[in-house]
Amino acid sequence: MTGRSQPIQVAKMRGVLRESVSDRVAVEEPMEIRLGYEQDGERHAQSLSITMRTPGDDEDLALGFLFTEGILASLDDIAIVKPCSGDNTIRVELEAGVAVDLDRLQRHFYTSSSCGVCGKTSLDALRVQGLTRLVENDGLFSRAQIIAFPDLLRASQATFDETGGLHAAAAFDSQGELIVLREDVGRHNAVDKVIGVLLSEGRLPASDLGLMVSGRASFELLQKTLVAGMPLLAAVSAPSSLAVELAREFNVTLIGFLRGDNFNIYAGEERIA
Amino acid sequence: MTGRSQPIQVAKMRGVLRESVSDRVAVEEPMEIRLGYEQDGERHAQSLSITMRTPGDDEDLALGFLFTEGILASLDDIAIVKPCSGDNTIRVELEAGVAVDLDRLQRHFYTSSSCGVCGKTSLDALRVQGLTRLVENDGLFSRAQIIAFPDLLRASQATFDETGGLHAAAAFDSQGELIVLREDVGRHNAVDKVIGVLLSEGRLPASDLGLMVSGRASFELLQKTLVAGMPLLAAVSAPSSLAVELAREFNVTLIGFLRGDNFNIYAGEERIA
Repeated sequence: MTGRSQPIQVAKMRGVLRESVSDRVAVEEPMEIRLGYEQDGERHAQSLSITMRTPGDDEDLALGFLFTEGILASLDDIAIVKPCSGDNTIRVELEAGVAVDLDRLQRHFYTSSSCGVCGKTSLDALRVQGLTRLVENDGLFSRAQIIAFPDLLRASQATFDETGGLHAAAAFDSQGELIVLREDVGRHNAVDKVIGVLLSEGRLPASDLGLMVSGRASFELLQKTLVAGMPLLAAVSAPSSLAVELAREFNVTLIGFLRGDNFNIYAGEERIA
Repeated sequence: MTGRSQPIQVAKMRGVLRESVSDRVAVEEPMEIRLGYEQDGERHAQSLSITMRTPGDDEDLALGFLFTEGILASLDDIAIVKPCSGDNTIRVELEAGVAVDLDRLQRHFYTSSSCGVCGKTSLDALRVQGLTRLVENDGLFSRAQIIAFPDLLRASQATFDETGGLHAAAAFDSQGELIVLREDVGRHNAVDKVIGVLLSEGRLPASDLGLMVSGRASFELLQKTLVAGMPLLAAVSAPSSLAVELAREFNVTLIGFLRGDNFNIYAGEERIA
């Protein structure tokens, strides 16, 4: 297993002073996800995705990716998940009889329609995928719990401390406790890893958990939050327009600019006590 | 044309104070790139990519994407670039007789090999694409020019100021002048837009320009820098391990943690006077 960070020699300029020091950088390596499935009585294997990721929790990443992309409906669909041909390929074998819609990966969030490509078609595509508005659960988190998220997140970011180069995502329960945290060079990967863990542990849909991310809140991160059934996404930085639209339409609580005692609520304010 | 930011009503929590205010968020919308080409005497059209982006400079984004992905070798390959079916699709028509390798998009940076997927195969794939080490050009930028990049970048980030939600990329010449800056919700898009502009203006390969990005330096951003022939990439945040390897192997100057008077040099130090 390759490590999550590695040593490197670097020239540090501090004003006009140049110093050659040993430092650490976050590891980035490609990982391939291969899906094994049965069709017409025969086993097939197909490469689904190659993503640049930080090694570690690769099985969680594969599961979270397949689940949030809608390829995998439940843990029961899976026969086995295992690394193969070295450290950078994860093979996910589906149970016999599980139907697989590989077109979905091509279509992704997007459905072609006469009105062209736009934000509305992206939201419509989520409905086609069977996603519906999350149920109300007023006062799920308190203001005090929410402003405590960033410090809890940072306190658990071991590799960030070494390298300054990793995104983090974490799930919090309604007592404000950090349940699981994962780091990655890719924002989406960090979220997929967290959701993969929750899937493995039979905790999805996670209607009692909130998700926090170290960066911004994009449409795709909101989509993953929604697919996991998580009613709250909190981000350190800004949300995008389409993330806000998705949150409002599917009743996900969306918090941005969560820093110090302050935060902005873009949707689902009733979940905050 | 949809704007780059849009107004939104938001609840701002400042400590225990709640205030409902009008704010702005960065616009995120899908954009489709369609490639028109001739094969066996007939015109074909194919959807190549749908990316979430901030509207604006869509033609530059399409050109930069096609060029840095290796689909497009030169501006001469193009007959016309135009928006079609609404605002969110860009159609790029190639000249008759221009061969197009659509498999490349599937393979992307990655070539399957007996040794499996790893960082080494990613670097080998760049060689397969015909990329070679950049030539030496010692003392291209001074230390003073480099530490001035971030302020010049921020001073031109109009939409970031409004929303706090956009990445930026900019090209600088060896006088330290900002030549072109683009913003986008996606890091890769911002870089593709800058490279698209340089391609349009006949400035590629840009052996006299440096690229600066507002975030981290990943393998893919280094790859785009290299494809554009730009000898320097400077990032506000951390580089990844594979970005450093690429930079060292292909002789790109790589700067990280560029903040205030300080920065780290990971590769190609001789270009800094």
